[in-house]
Amino acid sequence: MLIGVDWGTTRLRAYLIGADGWPVARKDSDDGLLNVKDGDFAGVLERTVGPWREDAPEDTPVLLSGMVGSRQGWVEAPYVGVPATAEALAAHCATVETPLGLVRIVPGVAIGQTVPRGGLARGDVMRADVMRGEETEVMGALEALGGDAGTFVLPGTHSKWVTVEGGAITDFSTYMTGEIFAAMKNHTILGKMMSRDEADREAYLGGVARGLALGPGGELMSALFGVRVEGLMGRLREASAASYLSGLLIGAEVGAASRGASSVTIVAAAALAERYARALEVAGVEARAAPPDTAARGLAKIAAALS
Amino acid sequence: MLIGVDWGTTRLRAYLIGADGWPVARKDSDDGLLNVKDGDFAGVLERTVGPWREDAPEDTPVLLSGMVGSRQGWVEAPYVGVPATAEALAAHCATVETPLGLVRIVPGVAIGQTVPRGGLARGDVMRADVMRGEETEVMGALEALGGDAGTFVLPGTHSKWVTVEGGAITDFSTYMTGEIFAAMKNHTILGKMMSRDEADREAYLGGVARGLALGPGGELMSALFGVRVEGLMGRLREASAASYLSGLLIGAEVGAASRGASSVTIVAAAALAERYARALEVAGVEARAAPPDTAARGLAKIAAALS
Repeated sequence: MLIGVDWGTTRLRAYLIGADGWPVARKDSDDGLLNVKDGDFAGVLERTVGPWREDAPEDTPVLLSGMVGSRQGWVEAPYVGVPATAEALAAHCATVETPLGLVRIVPGVAIGQTVPRGGLARGDVMRADVMRGEETEVMGALEALGGDAGTFVLPGTHSKWVTVEGGAITDFSTYMTGEIFAAMKNHTILGKMMSRDEADREAYLGGVARGLALGPGGELMSALFGVRVEGLMGRLREASAASYLSGLLIGAEVGAASRGASSVTIVAAAALAERYARALEVAGVEARAAPPDTAARGLAKIAAALS
Repeated sequence: MLIGVDWGTTRLRAYLIGADGWPVARKDSDDGLLNVKDGDFAGVLERTVGPWREDAPEDTPVLLSGMVGSRQGWVEAPYVGVPATAEALAAHCATVETPLGLVRIVPGVAIGQTVPRGGLARGDVMRADVMRGEETEVMGALEALGGDAGTFVLPGTHSKWVTVEGGAITDFSTYMTGEIFAAMKNHTILGKMMSRDEADREAYLGGVARGLALGPGGELMSALFGVRVEGLMGRLREASAASYLSGLLIGAEVGAASRGASSVTIVAAAALAERYARALEVAGVEARAAPPDTAARGLAKIAAALS
């Protein structure tokens, strides 16, 4: 048995996980970091998973993943570099003593943390990125689907595209897609044409086509103004503008991130997974969906690697 | 003599213009469209330029440009298509009778207003765009600098890149650069690292280099998250993050928009013109600045073409 918690900024998802790696009980609340008062993480944890302890063996380990391990969280679990295996994640867990016993926190993963020996040459662009929580979901998706390699997308506020080789996370990129969508819709002139909002598949696919066709550089900033232009010219209904904008941004993301991939595994809830599946289809990339509970599966896999 | 007004959403810039096309008096106020109460455009105009009428000849024409000619403005002056010459702009001015006499409003310019004969083929992406006010500034810059062709950038909330051939505007694109900067800074996680803000030339140029290096698609959305990552990794000071973000977006804009241009004329106030000049320099594109009062010069040129 294992008690696992995917503890993010806004949500907390707790699992009681059986020996086979599948959750036998779950709790989902809005006790994310932002709602933990006075740093009382131990109290929130006790209140959430305490009842499970009464039935589970005394030594049932507790493993957390997500932003709870960030500097703004409970105890910082410093990032590990790539390649990051389940064993490396297990070996670098942070620990904290609590009334519930020892609690471990899975570290995040970073690339480009250090400048290469010799420094950056003039004109060099160094790509760096971080994730926290998604590494555990990717491990779970790998475990659930079998195999030890592939490309994974975890869409959302900050979409992650993750490359796995030989069972290790070797590369990844973050796209601010969801957050840019919200900022454009709520805080720019584009929102003025979105007083109504209906899901419009045709408009979504029109946006996807535009996003996939973007050339080098910041042409996206011009295509964004195009949302307004299409409205001004009467070719985009007000109620469809948000669907078009969503398609444009997801198409732009898929166009940049899926290059070189023949197949992508989508780790997301059904509605969002469906949007990405459509965009990947238009891009000519095979898509498959990961089963649910990838965080629980990943926590189980990392817990199994704890020595 | 001519009374010319560049009347935008937030600002009003009025000029008394001599026979040589140069302004002899000017007024600048925040009586933009948003501050005109009860649609009393005539009253605001009278209050602003009325005193000039006392000295100028009775038949001094009054010509307006900018958003005052939009559907949200005073009287709509429908867009003209490309190629748009000063003569075409003059021929399509909207008119309104006022206590000051007949007032004319310069139309905006649109591309891609109509779907090509035969319709769009599947996969076709139709580029459309609109401008209002910038066409007049471009005409003024052409007049001031001589020549009848070139590439012009008018940076700002919605940056315009305009191609002129044979004295006519033949193509243009809008980039939402300024508005995206504000939305990212004020309404996303990036703003959290920008509590202080100092102009940092090195950070700006670092952002420009990243923006110019963007590949196809929406890689910009990943580079935007990179602003946060650089901060997390301690490679970007909090006070320099806004400079880096500005450089990233302007570099991305220049990278996409200046392709194919060997020389670009910048139509902007000094501080913004300087930022674009630096980015163009890094991109290897020759930059020159237009002289001030391009709107007044353009209004004079269009007025001269009124039959």
